Amino acid sequence: MKKVLIANRGEIAVRIIRACKELGIETVAVYSEADTEALHVKLADEAYCIGPRLSKDSYLSFPALLGVAQKTGADGIHPGYGFVAENADFAEACENAGIKFIGPSSDSIKIMGIKDVARATMEKADVPLVPGTGIVPDIETGKEWAAKIGYPVIIKATAGGGGKGIRVARTEEELVKGIDITQKEAAAAFGNPGVYLEKFIEYFRHCEIQVLADGHGNVVHLGERDCTVQRRMQKLVEEAPSPALSEERRAEMGEAAVKAAQACNYEGAGTIEFIYDYQADKFYFMEMNTRIQVEHPVTEMVTGVDLVQQQLKIASGEKLPFKQEDIKINGWSIECRINAENAYKNFMPSAGTVTDYLAPGGYGVRVDSAVYPGYKIPPYYDSMVAKLIVHADTREEAIAKMNRALSEFMVEGVHTTIPFHQALMNNDVFKSAKFNTKFLEENDVLGVAEKAK
Amino acid sequence: MKKVLIANRGEIAVRIIRACKELGIETVAVYSEADTEALHVKLADEAYCIGPRLSKDSYLSFPALLGVAQKTGADGIHPGYGFVAENADFAEACENAGIKFIGPSSDSIKIMGIKDVARATMEKADVPLVPGTGIVPDIETGKEWAAKIGYPVIIKATAGGGGKGIRVARTEEELVKGIDITQKEAAAAFGNPGVYLEKFIEYFRHCEIQVLADGHGNVVHLGERDCTVQRRMQKLVEEAPSPALSEERRAEMGEAAVKAAQACNYEGAGTIEFIYDYQADKFYFMEMNTRIQVEHPVTEMVTGVDLVQQQLKIASGEKLPFKQEDIKINGWSIECRINAENAYKNFMPSAGTVTDYLAPGGYGVRVDSAVYPGYKIPPYYDSMVAKLIVHADTREEAIAKMNRALSEFMVEGVHTTIPFHQALMNNDVFKSAKFNTKFLEENDVLGVAEKAK
Repeated sequence: MKKVLIANRGEIAVRIIRACKELGIETVAVYSEADTEALHVKLADEAYCIGPRLSKDSYLSFPALLGVAQKTGADGIHPGYGFVAENADFAEACENAGIKFIGPSSDSIKIMGIKDVARATMEKADVPLVPGTGIVPDIETGKEWAAKIGYPVIIKATAGGGGKGIRVARTEEELVKGIDITQKEAAAAFGNPGVYLEKFIEYFRHCEIQVLADGHGNVVHLGERDCTVQRRMQKLVEEAPSPALSEERRAEMGEAAVKAAQACNYEGAGTIEFIYDYQADKFYFMEMNTRIQVEHPVTEMVTGVDLVQQQLKIASGEKLPFKQEDIKINGWSIECRINAENAYKNFMPSAGTVTDYLAPGGYGVRVDSAVYPGYKIPPYYDSMVAKLIVHADTREEAIAKMNRALSEFMVEGVHTTIPFHQALMNNDVFKSAKFNTKFLEENDVLGVAEKAK
Repeated sequence: MKKVLIANRGEIAVRIIRACKELGIETVAVYSEADTEALHVKLADEAYCIGPRLSKDSYLSFPALLGVAQKTGADGIHPGYGFVAENADFAEACENAGIKFIGPSSDSIKIMGIKDVARATMEKADVPLVPGTGIVPDIETGKEWAAKIGYPVIIKATAGGGGKGIRVARTEEELVKGIDITQKEAAAAFGNPGVYLEKFIEYFRHCEIQVLADGHGNVVHLGERDCTVQRRMQKLVEEAPSPALSEERRAEMGEAAVKAAQACNYEGAGTIEFIYDYQADKFYFMEMNTRIQVEHPVTEMVTGVDLVQQQLKIASGEKLPFKQEDIKINGWSIECRINAENAYKNFMPSAGTVTDYLAPGGYGVRVDSAVYPGYKIPPYYDSMVAKLIVHADTREEAIAKMNRALSEFMVEGVHTTIPFHQALMNNDVFKSAKFNTKFLEENDVLGVAEKAK
């Protein structure tokens, strides 16, 4: 691979350009009319405007992207995350145009992109799924099945979707009543009264396994990331390793992830996300992200493996340079996503000009950012503008380092989530590592409600 | 240790403040009138002006430094490097004032600071010294001794000094002539005709070993740094490990360094510098630096040990948390010193306002800097304003990463040595790793002479 087009913007475009430069690969940036002054445009060897500010007319435009790739003679297209990264049609269009899509095949993307197919594939591959049943034939069988799964359970209309026709039952009484109501509602709403049961995991941690798979049949996992700190399903802070997993469960999760990747003939870097039911000490397949993830740096910090370089090498046909037993987890890494948002005002986006900017530095501190002094953050895209990553020997030391680094991080002109992260790093619940995905819902980390009194 | 005064400025003051913050230690900065806007002043918990711009009236003033320490209730003083760092009198003044000097005892500093005493101490401790003789009694004995040492030799007047009364002899003929002339010159100049011989090591690499010693008798070395890229005896680029040492020689050098530290009852972080005669594959003690060094980060990157945190912990009376066998060298690290100098104009200092500044980031890149956008570099102090450090698996990959990082480093308003480092990273001799301390003297890395034609 001699020349790569980066079909993305922001920090991930910068990240990919860096990996290419280090491997001696030429880089082609693309940008919308709103991104003429973006850092990835400045850092790439070549840069081409591919359309107006709306993503559908630029970063999502197949003809625009493929047109530049062909014009510049790029051998490959790296999609980053978001935009065309998990678009099977785009991967297929690249395949048809003879340009290497730096990621899995369009078939792999399809398998993992369709929920039913993914679930069936995982079941066949022996990857743990949230326990569920077939259509409930009658109340007595329903009771039996629910008892077997264990309460609470979810009653789901088989024809439902999008959050409709779903009811939680915490007791047998609620189950009996719930099946009845849901069947009636479903019959009325969807013309199909069929309901099934699924275990309801209310309190869980989000754990995920990074995998790398080459085109020669080798699949290796690189340990887990814990992304339990979320706000409205959006990850805000990630760490590696997870403070919640035992060595045994960690090993099992890794093995399950490798099976998942093998089951869809995966190639490249991918992530298998799991629901970790810490009360039962069990984990279940959630979904697979068939691309590089925002939080990939924490894995790089603890394994010493450059994941984006590996993506590029795999796409060039190289074999993985390590085996499973070579992967060692070293120390602790935490990532804070720095979003241009006002955390005190419900995380309202805060676009505008960054009048002053100084990133923290020193030992164990990494900054992946698309910001520079004077940069105007456009309001049209993702509000995440930088990632601050630290690496230390222990979780406690990593938190201390993050606190130190956050205290130096100077961003003027726009609001950022830095104050939120500072409050979080000093929050006793976060420090205790004992929390679940409802943590931010249930804890007023910033003391906003307290202040409003 | 709860509160530390940092008796320094620039990037090393920032480095020490960072380590203190990570350990929960309060920080007191001091600054001259020329440094009111310096980054270390902004980052410390407290900051006090200690005098006018001249170092002797501020950063070197014992009463000013000790006065602030006493006023603020600091338990310790970290001297960094330069200024009072190797001043035995200052260490003694701290000892007398009951404030912990974060470094070795004044006695250890004295032993290593006086050349004769250091040499005698090293000889007793079995640390290899450059072979030499006593006063030459007559020409025939001189010939015998010179043959034993091996040519070339240096003829040195015992009463000489500062480069005077020194002559190199490459053959017996030159020796006979040289002894005669040097004796006559020395008799005339110093009233003492005595001359002695020493092996002349013309081509060598500068290798040095980092040691840590606690107050409980434990001494551990952390491998070597190679600082062979020098200009007029000033180090410009350092790397770890050294590309020139065999495993055997590396181990011997480490053992010699531990002996050297033990011989002067050392405490804290120190460096034993060696002349490595790569042609003979032998090394000799050069001197010991009884302080943290500019180039300490490359050792941190390959060992995973935070040297400044260790200094603070040792000063607090803690034991080293590792033994020699725990220290493993992982990958390759290179540091480039970014000086505010015009490399194209004979490295002329270039003070002034940094109008624009963006440090490189991403995986494996570390920046230790005292610069921010709008910072005015004062002309009164060291011209080194930042250090760019990379870490990768191999030397080749580290060079590629340094190249990538240098290409992103934006410093406007002043000249810097960034273009020099870019040329160096692409220089075939540097890449081959086959050079000695005369490398920059003998190679026009920047092509300045070429351009002048």
